[in-house]
Amino acid sequence: MAAKKLLILPGDGIGVEVMAQVRRIIDWMAKKRKIEFDISEGLLGGAAYDVHGTPYPAETLEKALAADAVLLGAVGGPKWDDLPFDKKPERGLLGIRKDMGLFANLRPATVLDALADASTLKHDVVAGLDIMILRELTGGLYFGEPRGIETLPDGTRKGFNTLVYTTPEIVRIGRVAFELARKRNKRVCSVDKANVLECTVLWREEMIKLQKEEFPDVELSHMYVDNAAMQLVRNPKQFDVIVTENMFGDILSDCAAMLTGSLGMLPSASLGAADAQGRRKALYEPVHGSAPDIAGKDMANPLATIMSFAMCLRYSFDMATEADMIEAAVKAVLKGGLRTADIMQPGKAKVSTTVMGETVVREL
Amino acid sequence: MAAKKLLILPGDGIGVEVMAQVRRIIDWMAKKRKIEFDISEGLLGGAAYDVHGTPYPAETLEKALAADAVLLGAVGGPKWDDLPFDKKPERGLLGIRKDMGLFANLRPATVLDALADASTLKHDVVAGLDIMILRELTGGLYFGEPRGIETLPDGTRKGFNTLVYTTPEIVRIGRVAFELARKRNKRVCSVDKANVLECTVLWREEMIKLQKEEFPDVELSHMYVDNAAMQLVRNPKQFDVIVTENMFGDILSDCAAMLTGSLGMLPSASLGAADAQGRRKALYEPVHGSAPDIAGKDMANPLATIMSFAMCLRYSFDMATEADMIEAAVKAVLKGGLRTADIMQPGKAKVSTTVMGETVVREL
Ligand SMILES: CC(C)[C@H](C(=O)O)[C@@H](O)C(=O)O
Ligand SMILES: CC(C)[C@H](C(=O)O)[C@@H](O)C(=O)O
Repeated sequence: MAAKKLLILPGDGIGVEVMAQVRRIIDWMAKKRKIEFDISEGLLGGAAYDVHGTPYPAETLEKALAADAVLLGAVGGPKWDDLPFDKKPERGLLGIRKDMGLFANLRPATVLDALADASTLKHDVVAGLDIMILRELTGGLYFGEPRGIETLPDGTRKGFNTLVYTTPEIVRIGRVAFELARKRNKRVCSVDKANVLECTVLWREEMIKLQKEEFPDVELSHMYVDNAAMQLVRNPKQFDVIVTENMFGDILSDCAAMLTGSLGMLPSASLGAADAQGRRKALYEPVHGSAPDIAGKDMANPLATIMSFAMCLRYSFDMATEADMIEAAVKAVLKGGLRTADIMQPGKAKVSTTVMGETVVREL
Repeated sequence: MAAKKLLILPGDGIGVEVMAQVRRIIDWMAKKRKIEFDISEGLLGGAAYDVHGTPYPAETLEKALAADAVLLGAVGGPKWDDLPFDKKPERGLLGIRKDMGLFANLRPATVLDALADASTLKHDVVAGLDIMILRELTGGLYFGEPRGIETLPDGTRKGFNTLVYTTPEIVRIGRVAFELARKRNKRVCSVDKANVLECTVLWREEMIKLQKEEFPDVELSHMYVDNAAMQLVRNPKQFDVIVTENMFGDILSDCAAMLTGSLGMLPSASLGAADAQGRRKALYEPVHGSAPDIAGKDMANPLATIMSFAMCLRYSFDMATEADMIEAAVKAVLKGGLRTADIMQPGKAKVSTTVMGETVVREL
């Protein structure tokens, strides 16, 4: 079997530190499980701007397109806050998502037993939570044209963006949702605002049609986005798979992530269309950001990025055994009482990023 | 003093029942406090469609424009779900908001001591919560043009809406936010997605300018909408006034409402621009919807609508004493142990809509 081509983009802030721990896991896999990785590194976001004057160097895209999978840390930080809109670190992230065609963003929100009390929600409301938010990632308001800021003849300024989806864009994300649900509890809740936005009227119509034609075995329900935000707080366990457009998905997945009380634990996968061999372009990253306030202090939680690597093994390389091993090791370490600062609880042992990474490797 | 012209729009579902309880309070005010109300009733939403074939009869708008204030129950229900987009009950609500120019939607999220345990969040996270979400209500995606669904030459369909704000729209809602904050804790958090959407880049720029020029005594901070959804769950008490655009406000205010655990308790006010006499067009409604599942069962919680009437007295008629009286009566009734089904807790007495309304009047 050919070596697995992995591109690592540590990015900014704690991205660098947490990725260093993933490197340990990769080294272990290479040595102990004889898995050949062909690893390259690249720059994205503020780190890329500092070197190349752009958050999104052509070289990085080239490497990403050549890789079997990309691992990303996080981008952004106050250092780059005053840059013009098109130089900000976020442009790098949005650019690579778009150019790699990563339209399907999988954001599981799960609560591990050991961490159920870390949530601000009552124990019973979140214990055992295991939902999947599927966010459309390359359409909608994020990329719609026309967009911009204009000055009108009377001096007034006008800012505008376009929310737009076509049927193929809706159908392809719908398919991913139904396929995910088939491997879970066979329920998809499509979130829209079809009582107000025509764009999401189309979204709802296409979801209904798709379910009827291709996925009659999966249950489909619909919910308005405002109600979905409520229901996530009221009773998150009612959901199995939630599928929604880009902007709604950004908001709801962060809300869901916070329900778990341990943002530092949550991985994500962004997938493109399947090619003839069934392979998808893919990028894996933690749900948390670059956390500039704790960057460089060896305090960040590396587990979300480590779990993102597990997702990578599972989805891109079909290595379920190895993915399971990593997830089991993470659970064991938590059960053993080790905690980074973000998930610290009374009676547990507070450890650094490095110690957490080393301990996961030892557990493996 | 001239009689206060009040238009009552019970709307659909539980709207009718809860409004009947408000009528009791109004009668009491007229009789015991010698306040003259000139009351008319009108139809909006499904109820209007059933009679006039439109959710938004011209007559209703006429009455609304002639009134000093409008009280609304709620609109919508499955009965009208299959109507075409432009006949749905929601069109009535959106139409009246737009035509009355109600650009400022005040949605307080408060937790009364007696109900702090009703939340799915831990007691300490929400006890004493008192934040104000100010939602822009007549702009953004809800009303932006162009909008619609188009069929392209190749048969693909495309759905689109426009997110658009002009400087005057941003400035007028900003002013309301800063003025509200001056009467509270002098902190405004403006929520946007300025790292992605140009429209909200303009929003942020205008908020910064406005604060510098007119409200240097109020603190202004900015937060991305995804982070705001997280922070509401993590630590809602960090906020004082949140100001945001229409769609974000819809989502965040419902999320915040659910934090309180008692949606049936939350009022809202929608205000227009002040005229030369400082009077604003105004509509008051509960945050909850028409709740078709419990409609007609005398089970609904009338307190949100009663509290909306208190807001009406306070904001439209400058009757702070009477507004305080209503709010005190509601607190006393809850302290006395009465609960409608939605806020029922062990050891309390479950009562009907009618009994709740009667008891508030008795308490007055
Ligand atoms: C950094 C930002 C552009 C990004 C987004 O909005 O998509 C982030 O919030 C995310 O959710 O991955
Ligand atoms: C019914 C609907 C059109 C309305 C809105 O989205 O504004 C409602 O959700 C609200 O928040 O008042």
